[in-house]
Amino acid sequence: MRGAVLYAPGDVRVEEREDPRILLPTDAIIRLSATCVCGSDLWPYRGVEAVKGPAPMGHEYVGVVQEVGSEVKNVKPGQFVIGSFFASDNTCAICQAGYQSSCIHREPVGGLGAQAEYLRVPLADGTLVATPGTPSDDLIPSLLAASDVLGTGWFGAVAAEVGPGKTVAVVGDGAVGLLAVLAAKQLGAERIIAMSRHEPRQELAAHYGATHIVTERGDEGVARIKELTDGLGAHSVIEAVGTQESMMQSIRSTRPGGHVGYVGVAHNVQLPGEELFFSHVHLHGGPAPVRRFLPELIDLIWNRRIDPGKVFDLTLPLDQAAEGYRAMDERRAIKVLLNP
Amino acid sequence: MRGAVLYAPGDVRVEEREDPRILLPTDAIIRLSATCVCGSDLWPYRGVEAVKGPAPMGHEYVGVVQEVGSEVKNVKPGQFVIGSFFASDNTCAICQAGYQSSCIHREPVGGLGAQAEYLRVPLADGTLVATPGTPSDDLIPSLLAASDVLGTGWFGAVAAEVGPGKTVAVVGDGAVGLLAVLAAKQLGAERIIAMSRHEPRQELAAHYGATHIVTERGDEGVARIKELTDGLGAHSVIEAVGTQESMMQSIRSTRPGGHVGYVGVAHNVQLPGEELFFSHVHLHGGPAPVRRFLPELIDLIWNRRIDPGKVFDLTLPLDQAAEGYRAMDERRAIKVLLNP
Repeated sequence: MRGAVLYAPGDVRVEEREDPRILLPTDAIIRLSATCVCGSDLWPYRGVEAVKGPAPMGHEYVGVVQEVGSEVKNVKPGQFVIGSFFASDNTCAICQAGYQSSCIHREPVGGLGAQAEYLRVPLADGTLVATPGTPSDDLIPSLLAASDVLGTGWFGAVAAEVGPGKTVAVVGDGAVGLLAVLAAKQLGAERIIAMSRHEPRQELAAHYGATHIVTERGDEGVARIKELTDGLGAHSVIEAVGTQESMMQSIRSTRPGGHVGYVGVAHNVQLPGEELFFSHVHLHGGPAPVRRFLPELIDLIWNRRIDPGKVFDLTLPLDQAAEGYRAMDERRAIKVLLNP
Repeated sequence: MRGAVLYAPGDVRVEEREDPRILLPTDAIIRLSATCVCGSDLWPYRGVEAVKGPAPMGHEYVGVVQEVGSEVKNVKPGQFVIGSFFASDNTCAICQAGYQSSCIHREPVGGLGAQAEYLRVPLADGTLVATPGTPSDDLIPSLLAASDVLGTGWFGAVAAEVGPGKTVAVVGDGAVGLLAVLAAKQLGAERIIAMSRHEPRQELAAHYGATHIVTERGDEGVARIKELTDGLGAHSVIEAVGTQESMMQSIRSTRPGGHVGYVGVAHNVQLPGEELFFSHVHLHGGPAPVRRFLPELIDLIWNRRIDPGKVFDLTLPLDQAAEGYRAMDERRAIKVLLNP
């Protein structure tokens, strides 16, 4: 089969890879209907994360089950399914508490390479969720978004305790940040402040429910949030970048007693304990337990109540994955869908 | 009046200070029935925090109202009252959300010096809570504990989302840690693991409801908590020290999705963002909004359902404050009560 492989920073190639096959009785093989490039794929692509030899890329996937191992009970060949970036058993105490991305048996899907024609999904029963039927083509981008960026933005909003009557700020205008705006709207936020200086992203944020746009960053961004909230800060801030600046901007934009939900994968972040102590914020986040939210998100998409697929503003054939990475790296595209 | 003043690390003197008087119409003057030395007083005493010139010390107090400003409505002369280390209006949006120690008008009481005969309490209406009547002498230590260490331990337990069915670990065996054990018990925890290597403190922890004692610290302490929790970590961990080691021990002792409540005043702490991200813990804490809990805590003490005053294992006249500091610094005493 064909699949994308990262050889070195900036060097993504689509090449022939071995077809995946069932290795364990809990595995499933799916034929991908769509896959995509993630903001987090840009960390190794940019050399911020080390690239150790040629690495199959991709961890977002929707597709049709081709084959299942002998112990798989919940999904069967022919079903259209969605999974996320950590395979999980969905039965351990951590999964049952809603933290499937910290499942005691979790396996990262990233290493298996979902930017490809086929994918082996470990722990298929715990990981995959089937849609009610075969989706029409126009729903596929939204279902693919549920695999990571929607689920991640949603978790950010839940971690930030977004709810009715609250003012929410979103730091980061990538796909996750934009879909955190969508999540905040769905969860009933009263005001949603999107922090973005890019016009197409501002427009999409407004489409998803942002009531205010703030273009300033850092201390100036914090000052604008304070101005909009009687000097107190937002009740809930969703961090969707992962840098020192974005984390501090998020903490400082939150009122005492408020909540920061952080879902940008932290890179070289050190949080000053004393400032955090006196900030009085709640801090929660990490790799989103997308599996927790998948049934609800699929339902919302299936019934066309949300349209997260709009974050895909560039669609390419899988063979042009390298151009997809470039477009996202240069911020020419918000998110790139790849057709295998 | 007489009052304790810190001149330099290790140099506490009780000397004549000017009698406090009403400065603002929202002030009250109270005659202290008891005051005490706090673990956090040891930071400047040990020179870890800078001492800027002679500083009146103390921020824990119970006593009888002597005089009130013209705008004070909620307390009146003759009443026995308890306040905490931040004066607060108890009416702003932050107070109403339960974060009185981040009140938009807050004033630190520490700078006013509660280790003294009299104290000016700003924002008396929002800060002071009267007891149902004049307490008998044996209740005074417990009421004094409510002024800070009990309220702080309680907030730690609330921030750590302690509740029925949960396993709770407490890092730190000072008065706050011990009273966090008491709080965890009151809040219905199923198992309470006190981390302590000091026998008298272990005994008091057991008295307050600890079901397990762990003497190991750091990585070994984390390993012991994991052993006791099926390898997962505790649901709730209360951090009551404030060092890098104790914070990391707390975070690492908590299961994914669990809660760290941290109330040790952070000193030279830097939290590694990436580890925190993948830990999946909730982190909340800061200076305890003791005012939120005072009515409930006074009620529990008044009805003799809790006995937090047992943390005072040394009582001295105010004039011997220096010996009180030494005893706590050398860990000869858990907490020292001073009689003005």
